[in-house]
Amino acid sequence: RLAARLGERAVLTREPGGTPIGRSIRDVLLDPANRALVPTAELLLYFADRAQNVAEVVRPALAAGRVVLCDRHVESSLAYQGFGRGLDLGAIRSLAALATLGLRPDAIVLLDVPVDVGLARVGRRGGADRLESEEREFHERVREGYETLRGEEPARWLRLDGTASEDAVFEALRRGLVERGLLGESDA
Amino acid sequence: RLAARLGERAVLTREPGGTPIGRSIRDVLLDPANRALVPTAELLLYFADRAQNVAEVVRPALAAGRVVLCDRHVESSLAYQGFGRGLDLGAIRSLAALATLGLRPDAIVLLDVPVDVGLARVGRRGGADRLESEEREFHERVREGYETLRGEEPARWLRLDGTASEDAVFEALRRGLVERGLLGESDA
Repeated sequence: RLAARLGERAVLTREPGGTPIGRSIRDVLLDPANRALVPTAELLLYFADRAQNVAEVVRPALAAGRVVLCDRHVESSLAYQGFGRGLDLGAIRSLAALATLGLRPDAIVLLDVPVDVGLARVGRRGGADRLESEEREFHERVREGYETLRGEEPARWLRLDGTASEDAVFEALRRGLVERGLLGESDA
Repeated sequence: RLAARLGERAVLTREPGGTPIGRSIRDVLLDPANRALVPTAELLLYFADRAQNVAEVVRPALAAGRVVLCDRHVESSLAYQGFGRGLDLGAIRSLAALATLGLRPDAIVLLDVPVDVGLARVGRRGGADRLESEEREFHERVREGYETLRGEEPARWLRLDGTASEDAVFEALRRGLVERGLLGESDA
């Protein structure tokens, strides 16, 4: 909805899978058959996808003056592989520096739901991927990780209540971006 | 031939592609259609494969007292992505520390041929992969890179003349490993 509101200025992408090469990497990452994938290999695959997406999609779009909306980024690796799997946060931040060359988002939008709500949604949808199939405690650590990261730079983060209606979530997003000067009232 | 000589003690593996997950990564890396793959993403894919191979194949084999023969390892990333593509050698060494947790081979065997000989062999075989399709100067930098790495720790490296006959190459390998105390005379 935000992309539709922004029109041709917006470029929608996602990690993993924002590029053709990234979609091959995404298949490896989310395939439930790949139970043997070790945490460090998983981490490096996410950053391989990210390096490709930043170089092929994000930087050219920014250079052309467009607005990039990216579904997940470095912070998800910190939350899932760092807080969730216990990998070293400093090592993950070094990978981020290598893969993004220091590029940071102007705003990080966190759609927050309690773990039970998230797992129930996955259950209703069916076909949980490799990460969604993790134990409940993993998801609790991930959620707490996001909250910790948000606490470190609250001005950059926009936490939205993901249990609200779609209309209410979008209105809160729109308002938060206007307040941060990232969306004009005319876009609203 | 070395694995056959060692018998059941030997575990043969390769990077990329020593594990089922690694074979999916290898397909991405070597597919000639993936021309858009940027150097940093390529580097991270090699290390994702390597982290998986070290955890799933190499460490369990060493723990069981076996001898691991690995077709390419960290030094190939230093030669190809560092010397060949110009990526930072320090960053590659940091990735190696993350992916291998500091594990180093007892011996590094370099099968050296002049670039013209290597390219002619690829031409006769047909079906060059993405790396083999690189320009001649790239392969020259890679070869010089291997030579530089060998100069930094000559005792660990065993450079063999890859233009010699298969029998002569194998005999030089066998002799070099015996001299380094890595192969008993009884294995010879």
